[in-house]
Amino acid sequence: MARYIPTPQTFRRPNPILLWPACTASPASASFATTASPTRQGRENLGLPKRSSPLNTLYHSNPLRMAAVTPSGTRAWSTGVVRSSLIEPDGGELMDLMVPPDERAARRLEAAALPVVRIRMVDLEWVHVLAEGWASPLRGFMREDQYLQSLHFNSIRMEDGSMVNMSLPIVLAIDDYAKEAIDVSPDVALVGPNGEYVAILRSIEIYKHNKEERIARTWGTTAPGLPYVEEVIRPSGNWLIGGDLQVLEPIKYNDGLDHYRLSPRELRKEFDSRQADAVFAFQLRNPVHNGHALLMNDTRKRLLGMGYKNPILLLHPLGGFTKADDVPLYVRMEQHSKVLEDGVLDPMTTIVAIFPSPMHYAGPTEVQWHAKARINAGANFYIVGRDPAGMGHPTETRDLYDPDHGKKVLSMAPGLEKLNILPFRHTVNSFVPPFYFSSPIWLVPNCRLQHMTPHTKRWHFLILPELKSFYLSPVPRCGRTREMETTLPTVLCARAVGKFWPTIISAFKQKKQENTPPQYLFKGRIGALYESELF
Amino acid sequence: MARYIPTPQTFRRPNPILLWPACTASPASASFATTASPTRQGRENLGLPKRSSPLNTLYHSNPLRMAAVTPSGTRAWSTGVVRSSLIEPDGGELMDLMVPPDERAARRLEAAALPVVRIRMVDLEWVHVLAEGWASPLRGFMREDQYLQSLHFNSIRMEDGSMVNMSLPIVLAIDDYAKEAIDVSPDVALVGPNGEYVAILRSIEIYKHNKEERIARTWGTTAPGLPYVEEVIRPSGNWLIGGDLQVLEPIKYNDGLDHYRLSPRELRKEFDSRQADAVFAFQLRNPVHNGHALLMNDTRKRLLGMGYKNPILLLHPLGGFTKADDVPLYVRMEQHSKVLEDGVLDPMTTIVAIFPSPMHYAGPTEVQWHAKARINAGANFYIVGRDPAGMGHPTETRDLYDPDHGKKVLSMAPGLEKLNILPFRHTVNSFVPPFYFSSPIWLVPNCRLQHMTPHTKRWHFLILPELKSFYLSPVPRCGRTREMETTLPTVLCARAVGKFWPTIISAFKQKKQENTPPQYLFKGRIGALYESELF
Repeated sequence: MARYIPTPQTFRRPNPILLWPACTASPASASFATTASPTRQGRENLGLPKRSSPLNTLYHSNPLRMAAVTPSGTRAWSTGVVRSSLIEPDGGELMDLMVPPDERAARRLEAAALPVVRIRMVDLEWVHVLAEGWASPLRGFMREDQYLQSLHFNSIRMEDGSMVNMSLPIVLAIDDYAKEAIDVSPDVALVGPNGEYVAILRSIEIYKHNKEERIARTWGTTAPGLPYVEEVIRPSGNWLIGGDLQVLEPIKYNDGLDHYRLSPRELRKEFDSRQADAVFAFQLRNPVHNGHALLMNDTRKRLLGMGYKNPILLLHPLGGFTKADDVPLYVRMEQHSKVLEDGVLDPMTTIVAIFPSPMHYAGPTEVQWHAKARINAGANFYIVGRDPAGMGHPTETRDLYDPDHGKKVLSMAPGLEKLNILPFRHTVNSFVPPFYFSSPIWLVPNCRLQHMTPHTKRWHFLILPELKSFYLSPVPRCGRTREMETTLPTVLCARAVGKFWPTIISAFKQKKQENTPPQYLFKGRIGALYESELF
Repeated sequence: MARYIPTPQTFRRPNPILLWPACTASPASASFATTASPTRQGRENLGLPKRSSPLNTLYHSNPLRMAAVTPSGTRAWSTGVVRSSLIEPDGGELMDLMVPPDERAARRLEAAALPVVRIRMVDLEWVHVLAEGWASPLRGFMREDQYLQSLHFNSIRMEDGSMVNMSLPIVLAIDDYAKEAIDVSPDVALVGPNGEYVAILRSIEIYKHNKEERIARTWGTTAPGLPYVEEVIRPSGNWLIGGDLQVLEPIKYNDGLDHYRLSPRELRKEFDSRQADAVFAFQLRNPVHNGHALLMNDTRKRLLGMGYKNPILLLHPLGGFTKADDVPLYVRMEQHSKVLEDGVLDPMTTIVAIFPSPMHYAGPTEVQWHAKARINAGANFYIVGRDPAGMGHPTETRDLYDPDHGKKVLSMAPGLEKLNILPFRHTVNSFVPPFYFSSPIWLVPNCRLQHMTPHTKRWHFLILPELKSFYLSPVPRCGRTREMETTLPTVLCARAVGKFWPTIISAFKQKKQENTPPQYLFKGRIGALYESELF
């Protein structure tokens, strides 16, 4: 199904002299929270635990802040209305469910008199997603009509008959006690994990939460061991509550990364300020590696080749719930900073920001959500790779999804017609130099290996800072995707690696002398860094 | 979501004097197979085993044939082009995948030289469905793009951007050996269960058959015990083969019911010949009972109330694969005939025909298919009741689907906008006389009780021919749907009933004298005729 590629808009003059200065600014001065509320200080304890100060010093570079600073030191964008020059938000209007500052005191008083629904951290992340309009045209947690359309059609029909994509149910579960407490009240107050009033949910509708059906239709399996299912859905209540959301103040996590959490409105402003004539979004939940970098730079070239004059990359790591063995957000953000510092990606044409959504690991169903949310953030191109949002089957030795289904489903999804899908093109038989990307490796000793699916297991080049030019030889087991084997995991997210690190180092040194095939040394330890990790 | 109700067309004069004569015509003379091929005799052994002659004598009435005969004895319809005055087929064109008679010999020769794919009875039923255009715009078994759209979106996008509904994957599975045998051949021959060439599948595409994902996304569960899953999907191969179908000759079952198997083309002709200005379809896989009859007659009144002058009912029992404990097709057809003979439904405004599709029992997903296929047959109104295409959960003591989800999903389904959905309206607090429907009861001793879900179990009125005016008192356990308890199962499809029939008869006689509450007599035997059976 061919996609309509829009004609590039008339070239607009880029921002003058957007430099990439060396920077050691503190996280506080780098803060980007233009929607920060007057009561922000009072909410510092909401959500995540506060990080210790040594961690905060990691965030010495905010690529967006740097690139967006004009020579005079003021921000490059205006504070005017949001432009939607590249792509309209779904439903035509970008939702903003935040209570205006001058009404917050009154709404808080009102909330205190309402029946209370206690929400968890992951629910708070969804409140964040809804509040800023990532899920436009949703005005709150789904009512049953929306839920059923999402579950069965991955899309929702608007009043004018048009369809918007909506592949993941964005719902709030409550238990029998909460339902009973609500009784016939039309509105409820949502109270966060730390006891603070978060929002009012109005004109509520309570309906049955058939977990089995929700899981089966969202993941295409009901096998035990799906992270979001086990940690979020199964422990949740047997009812869903939908309604219109009024969020009492902006959601902050106080983890030193809030300045990366740009809302769709802020991102659109930034694209306008940079005078982008194309925005291509790249969703990721892993460190940027060689393959990613190659892909993103290649995409930029393709867009320039199409006639666009100023394509901007939105490097958009997911920041909400992830499974326990994924690389932690702060490590990823630090790595992303390094990538831009090193010039692997051009900071002049790249924006790094955090996508606040939780992760479902629901493959073809979830990739639609990832793309749809980026429409609302103003991106009109979306890069999709192999097995997006996929993972290994929780109980079988195979990938959960066909690795090609993600991009196929995405390219056919109702409501995404206006988005240009850029599937990753395999450049078979091309060989990328192994040292294309030279960032240091970050060790994360307490993460387990991901995707332990033997049939996709393969060896990748591995660059160790201690060993400089040393790397594992690729073992071409499938033979057809040779360029895949040149990709570089820059974070070894393996508990095994942490444990066996000294062994690995010494073994590598020995191997360097002996030229022994590495698979015999590390089989079952670090041997599972493979292509399904790439996207 | 309100539906557009079209303005009735200008009244056209109905057929003059369409009488309902008493009839004892034999099945042969009642045959309706206008598409019967020259080689029909040669295919008599294809498909189902031939029924014995005593059974054939059951089919002494074909309501359609009777009603459509003019006083002069000729058929009322012309042999001209198909009119689509009430509703367009999906995609604008009613598919006809039958090879024209003068080409069949050549195609048969060609088939004999192609790699062979052996198909099962249920696959043959799907060939039948596809061949006659019930699944228009499909031109054959689904290729992967269509399959993925069906699975994820319950709909398929046409080249012009419009959507057609397609909620069930209509696919053909093959095993590794068949795949290997096909090799690189672009076409294959389909060979039926009795070794006869059925069709050629052209420009084939072979892709992976992920059964778990197909099951989960279609049924919303992967629990063991789903009839279509266990009998059709799990034993099938690990590959799916799609392509364009050329069917070598019309599918016949030679079970004495072929005259009921009218194609969408034939049905459209019949609606035109009757000068229908509205056609309302009623899908069923159970005998017509009191509630059904009430509903269908009420619907007709509603349509007349809307201003339609000549609404025609398409009473459309499903004739393909059903689970072993459903009432057999020949019993149902006989019962349907009786219903029209008794005048419970008006034969002048009713057409009884068999819908050749297999049954999935996939609730809200399947009801879309049932509705969509009737669009192709020319129906512009569709009646939907409680828990359509639902069944009890195979491993839990509950219904598999929320009984209201069927009609909700149907009313929102992409591609069904042009169809008018008529949800059954519960007339709470109205009381329908128990003798509204006086057909005799048909005993089916070898069928098990369906839907053994205790929480919906309740007692219904029961009329026994031997006991004339005797019936069970309703036990209003839920209290809110009193009219439900007045409905009458006219076939006791319970193995228990067969076994315990003498006990029941004597117990009833005794009860009649003693006025004992019946639930104490029959608990666990015939006590499971309940409301989930009604629709």
